[in-house]
Amino acid sequence: MTAALSDRKSRADYETLEAKFRQILTLGEASGMLVWDMATVMPSGGATVRTEQLAVLESLRHELLTASEVGDGLDRAEEKSAVLSSWQLANLREMRRIYRRATALDSGFVSRKTRSCKVCEIKWREARPEGDFKAVLPALQEVLNLTQEEANIKAELFGGSAYDALLDNYEPAGKSEQIDQIFSTLEGFLPGFLSEVLEHQRGRGVPKPLEGPFAIEKQEALGRELMQAVGFDFHSGRLDKSLHPFCGGVPEDVRITTRYDREGFTSALMGVLHETGHAMYERGLPPAWRLQPVGAARGMTLHESQSLLVEMQACRSREFIAYLAPKAAVAFPQAAESLSAENLYRISTLVRPGFVRVDADEVTYPAHVMLRYRLEKALILGDLPLEDLPMAWNDGLEKLLGIRPPNDRLGCLQDIHWFDGAWGYFPTYSLGAMTAAQIFEAAKKAHPEIPGALARGDFSTLMQWLQKNVHAWGSFYSTDELLRRVTGRPLDPQSFMTHLKSRYLE
Amino acid sequence: MTAALSDRKSRADYETLEAKFRQILTLGEASGMLVWDMATVMPSGGATVRTEQLAVLESLRHELLTASEVGDGLDRAEEKSAVLSSWQLANLREMRRIYRRATALDSGFVSRKTRSCKVCEIKWREARPEGDFKAVLPALQEVLNLTQEEANIKAELFGGSAYDALLDNYEPAGKSEQIDQIFSTLEGFLPGFLSEVLEHQRGRGVPKPLEGPFAIEKQEALGRELMQAVGFDFHSGRLDKSLHPFCGGVPEDVRITTRYDREGFTSALMGVLHETGHAMYERGLPPAWRLQPVGAARGMTLHESQSLLVEMQACRSREFIAYLAPKAAVAFPQAAESLSAENLYRISTLVRPGFVRVDADEVTYPAHVMLRYRLEKALILGDLPLEDLPMAWNDGLEKLLGIRPPNDRLGCLQDIHWFDGAWGYFPTYSLGAMTAAQIFEAAKKAHPEIPGALARGDFSTLMQWLQKNVHAWGSFYSTDELLRRVTGRPLDPQSFMTHLKSRYLE
Repeated sequence: MTAALSDRKSRADYETLEAKFRQILTLGEASGMLVWDMATVMPSGGATVRTEQLAVLESLRHELLTASEVGDGLDRAEEKSAVLSSWQLANLREMRRIYRRATALDSGFVSRKTRSCKVCEIKWREARPEGDFKAVLPALQEVLNLTQEEANIKAELFGGSAYDALLDNYEPAGKSEQIDQIFSTLEGFLPGFLSEVLEHQRGRGVPKPLEGPFAIEKQEALGRELMQAVGFDFHSGRLDKSLHPFCGGVPEDVRITTRYDREGFTSALMGVLHETGHAMYERGLPPAWRLQPVGAARGMTLHESQSLLVEMQACRSREFIAYLAPKAAVAFPQAAESLSAENLYRISTLVRPGFVRVDADEVTYPAHVMLRYRLEKALILGDLPLEDLPMAWNDGLEKLLGIRPPNDRLGCLQDIHWFDGAWGYFPTYSLGAMTAAQIFEAAKKAHPEIPGALARGDFSTLMQWLQKNVHAWGSFYSTDELLRRVTGRPLDPQSFMTHLKSRYLE
Repeated sequence: MTAALSDRKSRADYETLEAKFRQILTLGEASGMLVWDMATVMPSGGATVRTEQLAVLESLRHELLTASEVGDGLDRAEEKSAVLSSWQLANLREMRRIYRRATALDSGFVSRKTRSCKVCEIKWREARPEGDFKAVLPALQEVLNLTQEEANIKAELFGGSAYDALLDNYEPAGKSEQIDQIFSTLEGFLPGFLSEVLEHQRGRGVPKPLEGPFAIEKQEALGRELMQAVGFDFHSGRLDKSLHPFCGGVPEDVRITTRYDREGFTSALMGVLHETGHAMYERGLPPAWRLQPVGAARGMTLHESQSLLVEMQACRSREFIAYLAPKAAVAFPQAAESLSAENLYRISTLVRPGFVRVDADEVTYPAHVMLRYRLEKALILGDLPLEDLPMAWNDGLEKLLGIRPPNDRLGCLQDIHWFDGAWGYFPTYSLGAMTAAQIFEAAKKAHPEIPGALARGDFSTLMQWLQKNVHAWGSFYSTDELLRRVTGRPLDPQSFMTHLKSRYLE
């Protein structure tokens, strides 16, 4: 046998896996389209049968993924991995990761947990308007117990802490040790900084409010124009409405959504730009590795960094707001007086401590995340009894932001995450914000002309740089490796703090 | 073992099959939603990956369906079928039919044929505008050869003629012998009748043309209003735009489409009402048998009968047009003068022989179908060489309608069906039209108040009767059995001819 022939034979197992994962990922993408449909255009009558469609697709996907031939194929391909290219090796590593995660839990456990989360979510929807934590407590305890069980099983199998096993669901290889360190630095900085910012803002007086109403068609048209400025291609994507904004679809057909409010346009518009950042990441993934694990986005931290880089770093900059303001004044002539670049910038960077995470500004947002991160870690590790959550929440927020929620609706009942089983997700929001600052700083260092270009609505240099340095790598590197390559150092809060100081104390 | 326990055990195989087919049919419905998306909202960039999604879903569906456990399960359940209810028996019969059809062809043949059809369809899209039959002839010959091969294999396995094996793809248990008889009666009637109608129309002069343009939003609003009058529930369905109108989705979320033309509103509106007829059939299927073969629509003849019953029988009636005309005059005030009930009725029932099937009126339509039916039968049975098709087409149309296509674009290249492999489909259009007339006659006999109700836009009696007598039976009966039960006799062209005489010679 010639060396070339032997290499070809050795690669065969790997290639069979590629074909298998292509099928598995395609199935997942088909489900993703049906989820998009459900959230945007599906009439209410379709819900039950759609849920069944999604369950059937998911069970088939899971069956394909956990088939013994996949495990055996992985074993054989890993044995002969010497013949593989670096991308193929990285792909094989990601296949193993996905396979290991899918086979960690038996299907009886998974369906028990899915059911508990569904029950708890329904209870939560009833309990939240009333702020009635006790009403949802038993269902949430059940979810927590099963989540702990999952965490312990995975920690046992993969090593690391129980909390890290959950974090890994959203941020592959994420470590709470690193997060603790970062958040601790941030906590030393934020409360004092917040006082300074509020003081600084008071000195300037309140910005002029924007005079509504803002016609939804105008908001949408402006949103589309700005999406195109960022680089969104409507031949390969859509903008629609949904109750909760999200980015779905596939790289060739990436679909973002927003929700509109006639009383104000900034929230929907910044939401559109945020989702556009997610969309650009998906669009920029390596085409040669489409429908392979290594070609997928790296994790929630990096995904959120790309949305926040566009929304927070680029589109709330003085430069971009100067580009946006006159356009907004044309779209909404009745509000033109309050749409000077200066006033719109001050509105877009207004800091106001509040109870609700999703309404929070860039400065107070990390406090909401740190609170949730610490509480969920304590709950998972058994350091906080669940019935003490409301009190711990209120104490925590008061300590971080100096305000105390008057009820649990504005406190620990506000977010869906824990109630539908998304434990370990919260920290990625703020890790994403800090990653965005660190990457944007690197982009500007490489291309000092970027802020000036943003003032002309020109995102091309920024987006090309991001595509080349971040998006195009898919899951080839770990989040940490990628960030080191792009910025020269691991994640730390320095760039983020520098950014906040420069924006909010200028 | 008690008799009850023994019965329960005997039913177990059947029940396993129910669960399996529920999964298989759900998978098919998921694909259906993705097809709807592709035709209505998908941006062009999504086409390639969507095609792959559909291929993966279809191959999984086929794998599930043709698994040996399904065949074995069918054998065992059929042995013990004495314990099954009549609906379960009918369901088992339909399962067997679907399984037999899915296993008749090996997967190598199926993918060879799929590829040939795809190639031929692309050639046809290029050749049609030029009317260049020769350019597509080799590709079409390949499709025809493979279609003949399929027909012969299935005829061998299932009995009956090669053509009937293809017809069965669209009209289960359809027989060309019966169609020959019906079409022969119709052919004896139509040419003479057409002359009479044209003479009759000439005597009345041409109707006043409708003054455009017709705003698309107004057309859509009017369409929605009439859909609701027919009984369409927008909590369980949608109306959208697509290049080719169709009815898709699932019974709980049935999605119809249309295309609009600013120069005229009647074509889109009648199209909407046609698709609403399809939708009402889907909505009316037996809920207790959802996602089981026996719960599905019976076949193309019955499906087309339900759309044509709504469009042709009900909505082009004098009574309904009298209800519609004033509504149209309000929606399109500039055309109010030509929107008298009399003038709109004459426009909606205008007969004009033409070359193009999809533009044909109710009287000349069957001629287009008979032509295609005879030609495709002759081609499949080897009685007509493919290169002679253009001449045979033109001769045939001249004989039936007295006009001769000036080129193949307006002749044998006009329809996609043969070029993408849909042989045996054409006759169901006219079988549907005749079935509609026969069923509508029975409905009016049972409820003589129906025409009066239509004059008030009240479809409730008609639709309830159809739901109870037609829709609710799903695939319990054969098409022939159902029609006998509903109308007291098998399909014949009498009701259709009576309807034509009464409408077009009054």
